[in-house]
Amino acid sequence: MTTTTVDNGVNVEAVLGARQAMTDMPAAAQFTWKAASEWVNGTHTQVSVKEYFGAGDDQSHVKTFVSDVDHPELFAAEDKGITPVEYLLVGLAGCLTAGIASVAQNRGIQLRSVKASLSGDMDMAGILGIDPDVRNGYSGITVSYEIDADASREDIEALVAQSQKRSAVYDALTNPTPVTVEVV
Amino acid sequence: MTTTTVDNGVNVEAVLGARQAMTDMPAAAQFTWKAASEWVNGTHTQVSVKEYFGAGDDQSHVKTFVSDVDHPELFAAEDKGITPVEYLLVGLAGCLTAGIASVAQNRGIQLRSVKASLSGDMDMAGILGIDPDVRNGYSGITVSYEIDADASREDIEALVAQSQKRSAVYDALTNPTPVTVEVV
Repeated sequence: MTTTTVDNGVNVEAVLGARQAMTDMPAAAQFTWKAASEWVNGTHTQVSVKEYFGAGDDQSHVKTFVSDVDHPELFAAEDKGITPVEYLLVGLAGCLTAGIASVAQNRGIQLRSVKASLSGDMDMAGILGIDPDVRNGYSGITVSYEIDADASREDIEALVAQSQKRSAVYDALTNPTPVTVEVV
Repeated sequence: MTTTTVDNGVNVEAVLGARQAMTDMPAAAQFTWKAASEWVNGTHTQVSVKEYFGAGDDQSHVKTFVSDVDHPELFAAEDKGITPVEYLLVGLAGCLTAGIASVAQNRGIQLRSVKASLSGDMDMAGILGIDPDVRNGYSGITVSYEIDADASREDIEALVAQSQKRSAVYDALTNPTPVTVEVV
């Protein structure tokens, strides 16, 4: 008998512990994620993320993470950071991949590499106000995974499917989310 | 007579030129935004963005921008970057603020500062699989702007409303976007 230790770097026991704690006390599952943005110049904005609320208390990242958002030189901007819509791809890739790693750990599947190529199609006739029938956002997004793991292709596809089923960002993009914008 | 020069750092002439070019040649308005992600360890993924397609040709940012996505220590992760859902707030803030700067420039309104606080509520009972009736994504997002500009409150509110109307990320979050996830 051979014993192999699967280690994808995910502490499944801790996550299952949090799941049990939040099952026992639903209020602990109520989270609020936060960000603070400050316009720099032109289309360049810096967005800082540090604090959040969850598990019944104020929480904090280990530091303040600052993301630069801008438009590219093609639109006569300074390209100080990626575009707003590219950040949606960043979130989607990070969410699905974290899910794949977590589900793999839970199922005893050792991952060796998990790469994805993402692309999102957008007709700029929307945001530029050229055609009112064209939406402002993406017409569609495709995520293509290339996964090297100690598992059959069927098991790998099942990993990805389970991650997709539980992905917060996949849900946020594929279903409507109420967004309120106000001036204080 | 006093002449004041409004400069928010947005090249409105160039943007209007691009708008005209894409009106004349709709194929030029077809863009594809791209990202490549690579799993690092645990829930930590790095997402690289450099190339995109638009204006009828391959385009490139000035450099490769790498974003780190992770889960926080509260979930026994290493917190090497902000969470996937926080990146949605980053994109939303960047998109609306770039729009505000652009519309202000077009309307001759000088901005002095544009700050926003964003918050998104999420019941973790969704992604943790505790309650199938709870969605995985945000139940709602609020963006609160504090804007100092050479304009009346009414004009400032109109700026924000126009930006929201033409925002790609606002659209992507509030309306459904088809997302295909595949294993190649």
